[in-house]
Amino acid sequence: MPSSNERSSSRQALIDAAKSLMIERGSIEVSLSEIAQRSGLNSALVKYYFGGKQGLLLALLEDVLGPSMRQMEGLLTMDVPSVEKLKLHVKGIINIYFRYPFVNRLIHYLFEDQQAGEKVAETISRPLAKTQRSLIEQGIAEGVFKPIDPKLVYFIVLGACDHLFFGTQMLRIAFGVEGVDDDLRRSYTDTLLELLLNGMTVDKPPVERGGPRVRLL
Amino acid sequence: MPSSNERSSSRQALIDAAKSLMIERGSIEVSLSEIAQRSGLNSALVKYYFGGKQGLLLALLEDVLGPSMRQMEGLLTMDVPSVEKLKLHVKGIINIYFRYPFVNRLIHYLFEDQQAGEKVAETISRPLAKTQRSLIEQGIAEGVFKPIDPKLVYFIVLGACDHLFFGTQMLRIAFGVEGVDDDLRRSYTDTLLELLLNGMTVDKPPVERGGPRVRLL
Repeated sequence: MPSSNERSSSRQALIDAAKSLMIERGSIEVSLSEIAQRSGLNSALVKYYFGGKQGLLLALLEDVLGPSMRQMEGLLTMDVPSVEKLKLHVKGIINIYFRYPFVNRLIHYLFEDQQAGEKVAETISRPLAKTQRSLIEQGIAEGVFKPIDPKLVYFIVLGACDHLFFGTQMLRIAFGVEGVDDDLRRSYTDTLLELLLNGMTVDKPPVERGGPRVRLL
Repeated sequence: MPSSNERSSSRQALIDAAKSLMIERGSIEVSLSEIAQRSGLNSALVKYYFGGKQGLLLALLEDVLGPSMRQMEGLLTMDVPSVEKLKLHVKGIINIYFRYPFVNRLIHYLFEDQQAGEKVAETISRPLAKTQRSLIEQGIAEGVFKPIDPKLVYFIVLGACDHLFFGTQMLRIAFGVEGVDDDLRRSYTDTLLELLLNGMTVDKPPVERGGPRVRLL
Protein backbone atom coordinates (compact mmCIF):
# COMPACT_ATOMS: atom_id res chain seq x y z
CA MET A 1 0.00 0.00 0.00
CA PRO A 2 1.35 3.47 -0.79
CA SER A 3 1.88 5.81 2.16
CA SER A 4 -0.59 8.62 2.67
CA ASN A 5 1.84 11.15 1.14
CA GLU A 6 2.51 9.01 -1.89
CA ARG A 7 -1.18 8.42 -2.19
CA SER A 8 -1.92 12.10 -2.21
CA SER A 9 0.84 12.99 -4.66
CA SER A 10 0.06 10.16 -7.11
CA ARG A 11 -3.60 11.02 -6.98
CA GLN A 12 -2.80 14.67 -7.72
CA ALA A 13 -0.32 13.70 -10.45
CA LEU A 14 -3.09 11.85 -12.31
CA ILE A 15 -5.45 14.81 -11.98
CA ASP A 16 -2.75 17.24 -13.14
CA ALA A 17 -1.89 15.04 -16.12
CA ALA A 18 -5.54 14.92 -17.25
CA LYS A 19 -5.85 18.67 -16.71
CA SER A 20 -2.76 19.63 -18.71
CA LEU A 21 -3.68 17.29 -21.57
CA MET A 22 -7.19 18.78 -21.79
CA ILE A 23 -5.84 22.34 -21.71
CA GLU A 24 -3.30 21.59 -24.46
CA ARG A 25 -5.87 19.94 -26.70
CA GLY A 26 -8.83 22.14 -25.98
CA SER A 27 -10.74 18.88 -25.71
CA ILE A 28 -11.82 16.38 -23.06
CA GLU A 29 -10.96 13.47 -25.36
CA VAL A 30 -8.04 12.14 -23.36
CA SER A 31 -7.42 8.41 -22.86
CA LEU A 32 -6.35 6.68 -19.66
CA SER A 33 -3.11 5.53 -21.26
CA GLU A 34 -2.25 9.10 -22.25
CA ILE A 35 -2.94 10.25 -18.69
CA ALA A 36 -0.76 7.43 -17.36
CA GLN A 37 2.06 8.28 -19.74
CA ARG A 38 1.96 12.00 -18.94
CA SER A 39 1.93 11.37 -15.19
CA GLY A 40 4.56 8.62 -15.35
CA LEU A 41 2.21 6.36 -13.39
CA ASN A 42 0.47 3.09 -14.16
CA SER A 43 -3.02 3.57 -15.56
CA ALA A 44 -4.30 0.92 -13.12
CA LEU A 45 -3.88 3.56 -10.39
CA VAL A 46 -6.85 5.43 -11.88
CA LYS A 47 -9.06 2.55 -10.84
CA TYR A 48 -7.31 2.38 -7.46
CA TYR A 49 -7.69 6.07 -6.59
CA PHE A 50 -10.85 7.08 -8.42
CA GLY A 51 -12.74 3.85 -9.11
CA GLY A 52 -12.42 4.51 -12.86
CA LYS A 53 -12.20 7.23 -15.48
CA GLN A 54 -15.54 8.83 -14.54
CA GLY A 55 -14.26 9.19 -10.97
CA LEU A 56 -11.05 10.80 -12.19
CA LEU A 57 -13.04 13.29 -14.26
CA LEU A 58 -15.20 14.16 -11.24
CA ALA A 59 -12.06 14.63 -9.13
CA LEU A 60 -10.58 16.84 -11.85
CA LEU A 61 -13.71 18.98 -11.85
CA GLU A 62 -13.57 19.32 -8.06
CA ASP A 63 -9.86 20.17 -8.29
CA VAL A 64 -10.50 22.92 -10.83
CA LEU A 65 -13.74 24.36 -9.45
CA GLY A 66 -13.54 23.55 -5.74
CA PRO A 67 -11.47 26.54 -4.58
CA SER A 68 -13.65 28.98 -6.53
CA MET A 69 -16.83 27.33 -5.22
CA ARG A 70 -15.65 27.78 -1.62
CA GLN A 71 -14.54 31.36 -2.34
CA MET A 72 -17.97 32.05 -3.79
CA GLU A 73 -19.76 30.65 -0.78
CA GLY A 74 -17.53 32.81 1.41
CA LEU A 75 -18.46 35.85 -0.66
CA LEU A 76 -22.12 35.31 0.09
CA THR A 77 -21.75 35.87 3.81
CA MET A 78 -19.66 38.99 3.38
CA ASP A 79 -21.04 42.47 3.89
CA VAL A 80 -20.70 43.56 0.27
CA PRO A 81 -23.39 45.18 -1.93
CA SER A 82 -25.16 42.80 -4.29
CA VAL A 83 -23.91 44.59 -7.40
CA GLU A 84 -20.30 44.06 -6.30
CA LYS A 85 -21.04 40.43 -5.51
CA LEU A 86 -22.50 39.91 -8.98
CA LYS A 87 -19.41 41.48 -10.55
CA LEU A 88 -17.06 39.23 -8.58
CA HIS A 89 -19.25 36.23 -9.36
CA VAL A 90 -19.29 36.77 -13.14
CA LYS A 91 -15.59 37.64 -13.25
CA GLY A 92 -14.88 34.48 -11.26
CA ILE A 93 -16.81 32.29 -13.69
CA ILE A 94 -15.16 33.82 -16.76
CA ASN A 95 -11.73 33.46 -15.20
CA ILE A 96 -12.38 29.78 -14.62
CA TYR A 97 -13.32 29.28 -18.27
CA PHE A 98 -10.30 31.32 -19.30
CA ARG A 99 -7.92 29.11 -17.32
CA TYR A 100 -9.75 25.84 -17.98
CA PRO A 101 -11.60 26.12 -21.29
CA PHE A 102 -12.53 22.43 -21.14
CA VAL A 103 -14.68 22.83 -18.01
CA ASN A 104 -17.96 23.37 -19.79
CA ARG A 105 -17.58 20.33 -22.04
CA LEU A 106 -16.55 18.25 -19.07
CA ILE A 107 -19.62 19.26 -17.08
CA HIS A 108 -21.99 18.50 -19.94
CA TYR A 109 -20.22 15.23 -20.62
CA LEU A 110 -20.65 14.17 -16.98
CA PHE A 111 -24.33 15.15 -17.07
CA GLU A 112 -24.87 12.55 -19.80
CA ASP A 113 -24.51 9.93 -17.08
CA GLN A 114 -27.23 10.02 -14.41
CA GLN A 115 -24.96 9.12 -11.48
CA ALA A 116 -22.08 11.43 -12.44
CA GLY A 117 -24.62 14.12 -13.26
CA GLU A 118 -26.10 13.91 -9.78
CA LYS A 119 -22.66 14.31 -8.30
CA VAL A 120 -21.97 17.40 -10.44
CA ALA A 121 -25.40 18.80 -9.61
CA GLU A 122 -24.74 18.35 -5.91
CA THR A 123 -21.19 19.75 -5.83
CA ILE A 124 -21.32 22.38 -8.59
CA SER A 125 -24.64 23.29 -10.23
CA ARG A 126 -26.89 23.57 -7.16
CA PRO A 127 -24.37 25.47 -4.98
CA LEU A 128 -23.75 27.82 -7.92
CA ALA A 129 -27.48 28.32 -8.46
CA LYS A 130 -27.92 28.87 -4.70
CA THR A 131 -25.23 31.54 -4.69
CA GLN A 132 -26.87 33.33 -7.59
CA ARG A 133 -30.31 33.08 -6.00
CA SER A 134 -28.98 34.47 -2.75
CA LEU A 135 -27.22 37.43 -4.34
CA ILE A 136 -30.23 38.21 -6.50
CA GLU A 137 -32.46 38.11 -3.41
CA GLN A 138 -30.05 40.42 -1.61
CA GLY A 139 -30.16 42.82 -4.55
CA ILE A 140 -33.95 42.78 -4.64
CA ALA A 141 -34.07 43.37 -0.86
CA GLU A 142 -31.66 46.30 -1.31
CA GLY A 143 -34.02 47.72 -3.92
CA VAL A 144 -31.28 47.52 -6.54
CA PHE A 145 -32.33 44.50 -8.63
CA LYS A 146 -35.65 43.98 -10.32
CA PRO A 147 -37.48 40.75 -9.52
CA ILE A 148 -36.08 38.11 -11.86
CA ASP A 149 -36.18 34.30 -11.91
CA PRO A 150 -32.75 33.13 -10.65
CA LYS A 151 -33.07 29.83 -12.54
CA LEU A 152 -33.29 31.72 -15.84
CA VAL A 153 -30.41 33.98 -14.84
CA TYR A 154 -28.36 30.85 -14.15
CA PHE A 155 -28.70 29.61 -17.72
CA ILE A 156 -28.28 33.04 -19.27
CA VAL A 157 -25.15 33.92 -17.27
CA LEU A 158 -23.42 30.55 -17.58
CA GLY A 159 -24.33 30.25 -21.25
CA ALA A 160 -23.00 33.71 -22.02
CA CYS A 161 -19.84 33.09 -19.96
CA ASP A 162 -18.96 29.80 -21.51
CA HIS A 163 -19.82 30.44 -25.13
CA LEU A 164 -16.75 32.49 -25.94
CA PHE A 165 -14.55 29.67 -24.67
CA PHE A 166 -16.64 26.79 -25.86
CA GLY A 167 -16.69 28.30 -29.32
CA THR A 168 -12.96 28.88 -29.85
CA GLN A 169 -13.04 26.98 -33.16
CA MET A 170 -15.92 29.18 -34.26
CA LEU A 171 -14.04 32.25 -33.06
CA ARG A 172 -11.04 31.23 -35.14
CA ILE A 173 -12.74 30.05 -38.33
CA ALA A 174 -15.68 32.46 -38.49
CA PHE A 175 -14.10 35.58 -37.00
CA GLY A 176 -10.37 35.07 -37.54
CA VAL A 177 -9.63 35.46 -33.83
CA GLU A 178 -6.93 33.07 -32.59
CA GLY A 179 -8.13 32.11 -29.11
CA VAL A 180 -9.16 34.26 -26.17
CA ASP A 181 -6.33 36.49 -24.94
CA ASP A 182 -6.32 38.67 -21.87
CA ASP A 183 -7.73 41.71 -23.67
CA LEU A 184 -10.61 39.78 -25.15
CA ARG A 185 -11.33 38.15 -21.78
CA ARG A 186 -11.45 41.58 -20.15
CA SER A 187 -13.62 43.25 -22.77
CA TYR A 188 -15.97 40.27 -22.82
CA THR A 189 -16.33 40.40 -19.03
CA ASP A 190 -16.94 44.16 -19.07
CA THR A 191 -19.50 43.96 -21.85
CA LEU A 192 -21.38 41.06 -20.28
CA LEU A 193 -21.39 42.74 -16.87
CA GLU A 194 -22.63 45.98 -18.35
CA LEU A 195 -25.48 44.15 -20.08
CA LEU A 196 -26.37 42.19 -16.96
CA LEU A 197 -26.13 45.05 -14.51
CA ASN A 198 -28.02 47.49 -16.70
CA GLY A 199 -30.52 44.77 -17.40
CA MET A 200 -31.03 43.65 -13.82
CA THR A 201 -30.89 46.89 -11.87
CA VAL A 202 -33.95 48.94 -11.13
CA ASP A 203 -34.21 51.92 -13.40
CA LYS A 204 -35.74 54.80 -11.49
CA PRO A 205 -35.73 58.02 -13.41
CA PRO A 206 -37.07 60.44 -10.77
CA VAL A 207 -39.46 62.04 -13.22
CA GLU A 208 -41.34 58.82 -13.74
CA ARG A 209 -41.46 57.12 -10.37
CA GLY A 210 -40.63 59.76 -7.78
CA GLY A 211 -39.07 58.87 -4.45
CA PRO A 212 -35.39 58.96 -3.55
CA ARG A 213 -33.05 58.13 -6.37
CA VAL A 214 -30.96 55.03 -5.79
CA ARG A 215 -27.34 55.16 -6.91
CA LEU A 216 -27.04 52.11 -9.12
CA LEU A 217 -23.56 51.51 -10.38
CA MET B 1 -29.96 6.98 -62.16
CA PRO B 2 -32.89 8.23 -60.05
CA SER B 3 -35.15 10.85 -61.63
CA SER B 4 -34.89 14.40 -60.40
CA ASN B 5 -38.04 13.98 -58.27
CA GLU B 6 -36.82 10.74 -56.75
CA ARG B 7 -33.47 12.38 -56.19
CA SER B 8 -35.00 15.29 -54.32
CA SER B 9 -37.32 13.12 -52.21
CA SER B 10 -34.66 10.55 -51.28
CA ARG B 11 -32.25 13.32 -50.40
CA GLN B 12 -34.89 14.95 -48.19
CA ALA B 13 -35.84 11.58 -46.65
CA LEU B 14 -32.26 11.08 -45.48
CA ILE B 15 -32.13 14.59 -43.99
CA ASP B 16 -35.50 14.09 -42.29
CA ALA B 17 -34.42 10.72 -40.85
CA ALA B 18 -31.25 12.23 -39.34
CA LYS B 19 -33.29 15.17 -38.01
CA SER B 20 -35.97 13.09 -36.32
CA LEU B 21 -33.40 10.71 -34.78
CA MET B 22 -31.44 13.64 -33.32
CA ILE B 23 -34.58 15.26 -31.93
CA GLU B 24 -35.72 11.99 -30.32
CA ARG B 25 -32.33 11.33 -28.73
CA GLY B 26 -31.35 14.87 -27.85
CA SER B 27 -28.01 13.94 -29.31
CA ILE B 28 -26.13 14.13 -32.60
CA GLU B 29 -24.77 10.60 -32.12
CA VAL B 30 -26.65 8.97 -34.96
CA SER B 31 -25.07 6.38 -37.23
CA LEU B 32 -25.43 6.09 -41.00
CA SER B 33 -27.09 2.69 -40.65
CA GLU B 34 -29.68 4.12 -38.27
CA ILE B 35 -30.38 6.95 -40.70
CA ALA B 36 -30.69 4.42 -43.53
CA GLN B 37 -33.04 2.24 -41.51
CA ARG B 38 -35.26 5.16 -40.44
CA SER B 39 -35.50 6.50 -44.01
CA GLY B 40 -36.00 3.07 -45.56
CA LEU B 41 -33.12 3.83 -47.95
CA ASN B 42 -29.71 2.32 -48.54
CA SER B 43 -26.97 4.01 -46.53
CA ALA B 44 -24.82 4.14 -49.70
CA LEU B 45 -27.14 6.91 -50.88
CA VAL B 46 -25.61 9.20 -48.25
CA LYS B 47 -22.36 9.04 -50.17
CA TYR B 48 -24.21 9.48 -53.45
CA TYR B 49 -26.18 12.57 -52.42
CA PHE B 50 -23.94 14.25 -49.84
CA GLY B 51 -20.45 12.86 -50.44
CA GLY B 52 -20.47 11.36 -46.94
CA LYS B 53 -21.80 11.84 -43.42
CA GLN B 54 -20.20 15.27 -42.95
CA GLY B 55 -22.02 16.44 -46.09
CA LEU B 56 -25.32 15.07 -44.79
CA LEU B 57 -24.82 16.92 -41.51
CA LEU B 58 -24.11 20.16 -43.37
CA ALA B 59 -27.23 19.65 -45.47
CA LEU B 60 -29.24 18.99 -42.31
CA LEU B 61 -27.99 22.23 -40.80
CA GLU B 62 -28.94 24.14 -43.95
CA ASP B 63 -32.35 22.44 -43.97
CA VAL B 64 -33.00 23.47 -40.35
CA LEU B 65 -31.47 26.96 -40.34
CA GLY B 66 -31.76 28.04 -43.97
CA PRO B 67 -35.34 29.38 -43.90
CA SER B 68 -34.68 31.36 -40.70
CA MET B 69 -31.41 32.71 -42.09
CA ARG B 70 -33.21 34.01 -45.17
CA GLN B 71 -36.04 35.44 -43.04
CA MET B 72 -33.46 37.19 -40.90
CA GLU B 73 -31.72 38.71 -43.89
CA GLY B 74 -35.11 39.90 -45.11
CA LEU B 75 -35.77 41.49 -41.73
CA LEU B 76 -32.65 43.61 -42.05
CA THR B 77 -33.90 45.50 -45.07
CA MET B 78 -37.29 46.16 -43.54
CA ASP B 79 -38.28 49.53 -42.14
CA VAL B 80 -38.56 48.37 -38.53
CA PRO B 81 -36.98 49.98 -35.43
CA SER B 82 -33.78 48.31 -34.21
CA VAL B 83 -35.33 47.30 -30.89
CA GLU B 84 -38.08 45.38 -32.68
CA LYS B 85 -35.54 43.76 -34.97
CA LEU B 86 -33.50 42.62 -31.98
CA LYS B 87 -36.61 41.14 -30.37
CA LEU B 88 -37.53 39.21 -33.52
CA HIS B 89 -33.92 38.11 -33.91
CA VAL B 90 -33.57 36.70 -30.39
CA LYS B 91 -37.02 35.10 -30.49
CA GLY B 92 -36.10 33.52 -33.82
CA ILE B 93 -32.89 32.03 -32.43
CA ILE B 94 -34.58 30.64 -29.32
CA ASN B 95 -37.38 29.16 -31.39
CA ILE B 96 -34.82 27.35 -33.53
CA TYR B 97 -33.19 25.84 -30.44
CA PHE B 98 -36.62 24.97 -29.09
CA ARG B 99 -37.55 23.06 -32.22
CA TYR B 100 -34.10 21.62 -32.89
CA PRO B 101 -32.22 21.34 -29.60
CA PHE B 102 -29.38 19.48 -31.33
CA VAL B 103 -28.42 22.46 -33.51
CA ASN B 104 -25.81 23.88 -31.17
CA ARG B 105 -23.98 20.57 -30.73
CA LEU B 106 -24.10 20.00 -34.43
CA ILE B 107 -22.56 23.39 -35.19
CA HIS B 108 -19.75 22.91 -32.68
CA TYR B 109 -19.15 19.38 -33.94
CA LEU B 110 -18.81 20.64 -37.51
CA PHE B 111 -16.41 23.38 -36.37
CA GLU B 112 -14.03 20.70 -35.14
CA ASP B 113 -13.26 20.00 -38.78
CA GLN B 114 -11.57 22.90 -40.62
CA GLN B 115 -13.36 22.34 -43.95
CA ALA B 116 -16.83 21.78 -42.49
CA GLY B 117 -16.21 24.68 -40.08
CA GLU B 118 -15.48 27.01 -42.98
CA LYS B 119 -18.71 25.97 -44.63
CA VAL B 120 -20.71 26.63 -41.42
CA ALA B 121 -18.90 29.94 -40.91
CA GLU B 122 -19.77 30.98 -44.45
CA THR B 123 -23.44 29.91 -44.44
CA ILE B 124 -24.40 30.45 -40.78
CA SER B 125 -22.00 32.22 -38.40
CA ARG B 126 -20.87 35.13 -40.54
CA PRO B 127 -24.33 35.97 -41.95
CA LEU B 128 -25.72 35.79 -38.39
CA ALA B 129 -22.94 38.03 -37.08
CA LYS B 130 -23.50 40.41 -40.01
CA THR B 131 -27.21 40.63 -39.19
CA GLN B 132 -26.45 41.41 -35.57
CA ARG B 133 -23.83 43.98 -36.50
CA SER B 134 -26.21 45.67 -38.87
CA LEU B 135 -29.06 45.87 -36.38
CA ILE B 136 -26.73 47.12 -33.65
CA GLU B 137 -25.40 49.79 -36.02
CA GLN B 138 -28.97 50.78 -36.87
CA GLY B 139 -29.77 51.08 -33.15
CA ILE B 140 -26.69 53.21 -32.49
CA ALA B 141 -27.57 55.44 -35.44
CA GLU B 142 -31.11 55.78 -34.07
CA GLY B 143 -29.61 56.87 -30.73
CA VAL B 144 -31.26 53.90 -29.02
CA PHE B 145 -28.32 51.51 -28.48
CA LYS B 146 -25.08 52.29 -26.72
CA PRO B 147 -21.89 51.56 -28.65
CA ILE B 148 -21.11 47.89 -28.11
CA ASP B 149 -18.84 45.39 -29.86
CA PRO B 150 -21.11 43.23 -32.06
CA LYS B 151 -18.66 40.32 -31.92
CA LEU B 152 -19.01 40.15 -28.14
CA VAL B 153 -22.79 40.46 -28.42
CA TYR B 154 -22.74 37.53 -30.82
CA PHE B 155 -21.16 35.20 -28.25
CA ILE B 156 -23.24 36.52 -25.36
CA VAL B 157 -26.56 36.24 -27.20
CA LEU B 158 -25.95 32.86 -28.80
CA GLY B 159 -24.45 31.44 -25.60
CA ALA B 160 -27.39 32.61 -23.54
CA CYS B 161 -29.88 31.35 -26.12
CA ASP B 162 -28.43 27.92 -26.49
CA HIS B 163 -27.51 27.13 -22.91
CA LEU B 164 -31.01 26.35 -21.73
CA PHE B 165 -31.36 23.80 -24.51
CA PHE B 166 -27.82 22.53 -24.51
CA GLY B 167 -28.09 21.91 -20.80
CA THR B 168 -31.33 19.89 -20.69
CA GLN B 169 -29.63 17.10 -18.70
CA MET B 170 -28.42 19.72 -16.23
CA LEU B 171 -31.90 21.24 -16.12
CA ARG B 172 -33.37 17.84 -15.28
CA ILE B 173 -30.81 16.55 -12.81
CA ALA B 174 -29.82 19.77 -11.05
CA PHE B 175 -33.14 21.63 -11.14
CA GLY B 176 -35.73 18.88 -11.51
CA VAL B 177 -37.16 20.46 -14.67
CA GLU B 178 -38.14 17.92 -17.32
CA GLY B 179 -37.21 19.63 -20.58
CA VAL B 180 -38.09 23.03 -21.94
CA ASP B 181 -41.84 23.47 -22.40
CA ASP B 182 -43.60 26.35 -24.03
CA ASP B 183 -43.94 28.34 -20.80
CA LEU B 184 -40.26 28.04 -19.98
CA ARG B 185 -39.32 28.95 -23.54
CA ARG B 186 -41.47 32.08 -23.33
CA SER B 187 -40.26 33.20 -19.90
CA TYR B 188 -36.65 32.56 -20.88
CA THR B 189 -37.07 34.63 -24.04
CA ASP B 190 -38.74 37.47 -22.14
CA THR B 191 -36.11 37.51 -19.40
CA LEU B 192 -33.20 37.40 -21.82
CA LEU B 193 -34.72 40.13 -23.97
CA GLU B 194 -35.34 42.33 -20.96
CA LEU B 195 -31.73 41.93 -19.86
CA LEU B 196 -30.40 42.61 -23.34
CA LEU B 197 -32.63 45.54 -24.14
CA ASN B 198 -32.16 47.23 -20.79
CA GLY B 199 -28.47 46.52 -21.05
CA MET B 200 -28.01 47.76 -24.59
CA THR B 201 -30.29 50.76 -24.76
CA VAL B 202 -29.14 54.24 -23.90
CA ASP B 203 -30.12 55.18 -20.37
CA LYS B 204 -30.35 58.91 -19.83
CA PRO B 205 -31.68 59.88 -16.42
CA PRO B 206 -32.21 63.63 -16.87
CA VAL B 207 -30.65 64.58 -13.52
CA GLU B 208 -27.33 63.01 -14.36
CA ARG B 209 -26.79 63.71 -18.02
CA GLY B 210 -29.23 66.45 -18.91
CA GLY B 211 -30.72 66.73 -22.39
CA PRO B 212 -34.05 65.38 -23.58
CA ARG B 213 -35.13 62.04 -22.16
CA VAL B 214 -35.36 59.28 -24.72
CA ARG B 215 -38.29 56.91 -24.49
CA LEU B 216 -36.59 53.53 -24.50
CA LEU B 217 -38.97 50.63 -24.65
